[in-house]
This record gives sequence, C-alpha cells and structure tokens, in this order.
Amino acid sequence: MTKHTAPSPRTRVRRLPDRAHYDPNTLHAIIDEAWICTVSLSDGQSPRAIPTAHWRDGHFLYIHGAKASSMIKLLETCEACVTITHIDALVFARSAFHHSMNYRSAVIYGRFESVTGDAKIEALERFIDKLAPGRWPELRPANAKEINATAVLRIALDEASAKIRNWGVKDDEEDMAWPVWAGIVPLQSSIGSPQTDAQSVTTTIPSNIPGER
Amino acid sequence: MTKHTAPSPRTRVRRLPDRAHYDPNTLHAIIDEAWICTVSLSDGQSPRAIPTAHWRDGHFLYIHGAKASSMIKLLETCEACVTITHIDALVFARSAFHHSMNYRSAVIYGRFESVTGDAKIEALERFIDKLAPGRWPELRPANAKEINATAVLRIALDEASAKIRNWGVKDDEEDMAWPVWAGIVPLQSSIGSPQTDAQSVTTTIPSNIPGER
Repeated sequence: MTKHTAPSPRTRVRRLPDRAHYDPNTLHAIIDEAWICTVSLSDGQSPRAIPTAHWRDGHFLYIHGAKASSMIKLLETCEACVTITHIDALVFARSAFHHSMNYRSAVIYGRFESVTGDAKIEALERFIDKLAPGRWPELRPANAKEINATAVLRIALDEASAKIRNWGVKDDEEDMAWPVWAGIVPLQSSIGSPQTDAQSVTTTIPSNIPGER
Repeated sequence: MTKHTAPSPRTRVRRLPDRAHYDPNTLHAIIDEAWICTVSLSDGQSPRAIPTAHWRDGHFLYIHGAKASSMIKLLETCEACVTITHIDALVFARSAFHHSMNYRSAVIYGRFESVTGDAKIEALERFIDKLAPGRWPELRPANAKEINATAVLRIALDEASAKIRNWGVKDDEEDMAWPVWAGIVPLQSSIGSPQTDAQSVTTTIPSNIPGER
C-alpha cells in the first residue's frame, strides 16, 4: 500500500507511525464504509463533539444538520477535526501490554464551508444516493422550507491521515511460549433485513435498499 | 425510561430533546456496549480527537495510552469531551427530509485525571476483564517498564447525556400515501469466531474469550 507522506505537521502520525497511511484511496475507503463520523470543535470554552452522518463526493466530506443548530453555526466559524473509526478485531496477546485492537481510522483537519444553492440540493441527493442509489427522484420532492431549514457543510480532505492496524498478535520474543491462549477475535458489522413500514403503500423492497433479502 | 434532567447546561440536549436521556443506567449501557470512544480536546490552536479503547468502572470512564503520547499529556491539562455512538438502523422515509438513523449516543464533558499506583494496575485489570473476564492472572505478569510506560486516565460521568432514536419512520401526515418504499434497515454488530495465533502454545479457546464457537 502506498504510504505517501503527511500533508501537514498536525496530520503526521507520531504514535506508532508504521500504522500511518496518507494516500487518498486508503482514506476514501475508510470514509465511504462508515455511516457516521465524529466532528470535534472548540466553542472557545470547552471542546465539543457531535457524531453525525456523512458522505463523500470527490475530495470533500459532507455533513448536514439543522440550520438552527448551535453546532452547525459554530462549525462555520472555527477549525474542526473529523474522525472516523472502524474496529475490526480484538487482539489477545500473551501479555496485557500487547493486547490491542485491529482498526482503520481517519482524521481530517480543516474548516467546514457552507454549501448553498443548487450545490446544496445536489449534495443532499448524493447523501440519499449513499443510502440507496437512485432513490432521490422517487421521494416526495424536497420543498423550500425543508431545504432552507437544512444546512450542508463540507470539508476538504487536504489535511487528512489514516491509521490502520490489520495484523495478528505481536508479543515479545521471550513470551511466545507463555501458556495462555493468544489470538484475534474479529468484530463484524452487517446490514440486516429491511423492515417495511406498516403504512408503506409500496410493500415490495426495491433493489436499491441495502440489506439482506 | 426515566429521563431525569440534564446535569449541567452544556449537557442539555437542545436539538430534538425528545431523544435525550440523563439517567445513569441508560448512559452506562451505551458506554459498556462500545469498544471505543472518541476523546476530543483542544490543543489551544485546533481541536483534536482520538478514537481510543475505553472501559467503565462505576461512575468513571477509563482510557489508557502511552505516557509519551502528546494527546495523553494534553488530556491531563485541559477539558475533554468524550463521545460514544452506536448506529442501529437506517431509516428510509417518504421525503428526503425525514430520512434518519436509529442510534444511541453518549456525550461526556469534564477533565480526565491520572490514575496511578496500585489503582492503575487494578484499572488495567478491569480493562482486560472487559475483553475477557478473568484473563489477567493468566497473562505473563505486567512488568515495571510496561506499567511505567502506560498512562491510565479516568473521567467522572457527572456531566453526561445520552441521545437515542429507536423508532420507525416518521413522515408528514400528507406524505403517508406517497408511492415509495418506506421502512428501516437494521445495522448489526457481531463478534466473529476467535482465531488462534499460529504460535499459541494453548490452542483450545478458553470460555472467557468472546465470540462464536
């Protein structure tokens, strides 16, 4: 995997740099597989963080929220840090010290900018596309009140880094024969079976809805 | 479910307050089910966030890290905000506006304090207990170098709130007959089958290791 170099000092992974990745493909895959990110900011007095749905279009990560939300208003005025994490396995070593987790995480620094006008509506369509490709035109059309009440923000993926641990148990050489079970336990995420709303007039689950059939 | 009241102004849920919960049982359940939290702070210049493993003991959430880590050092000097999120379902409504996710999230504000001496070792044992109850005494004992290199921090759950959406599709009354599929798609997390390390001298998976057999 191409590692590239850190795009800025604050994105350079200092702890365990052998787990660092800076190439866009690795970063995009981590972002795209996640339903939500955590957006951190400072309100001047204390740090704040909000878990929120996100989507990606090209070199930008998008979020949305109520225009009236204090966090959304704050985000347009200050620096932000976005994190995304997948936990893939628990790692059971022979010593407590070498217990670990396999994970894929991304950290993005920068400022969010407001997306407005037609670009806002197009962005919201991309969000629906992430959930169910092609669903937007089938929906009751968004009205002006809804569009106005919704803020869409995006942050460039310029200052970003990824960190990945995806290997097995690493113990000290002298501990290898210690008589305790060592191994990994995978953690899995899956999409279950769609459950049709009792009042849905359309009861056949369309092929663009994710999940098991 | 008992809702109680917010313990402080900054923990009061302002957006969609019908989703707010402030009782310890709800909060503890969200914390205990998660393997990781996201710790947000400000380094004085920009917000920073680190996804990290956590465990709970009573009224405190614990994390650990390398004592040499800049984030760990910072955390002892500043306010922090800890978030934990479970995403339980995608909610497909008849209008884009009412699309949503079912989730359970927790936000904790406060300051981390360093845990030292015997309490630090006991806390690390509690962490291993979360992964595999009773595993600590079976491990190669932790040595002074490892204990010294590890920082354990804890934050009280005094200033915390939870937010939960756990219901079906909510559309506007006039949209109920719109001819598009409406429903929810559950998202599931599961623990897979333990995979024994090729060099493990103990090959029988003990009963305290989580996962399918």
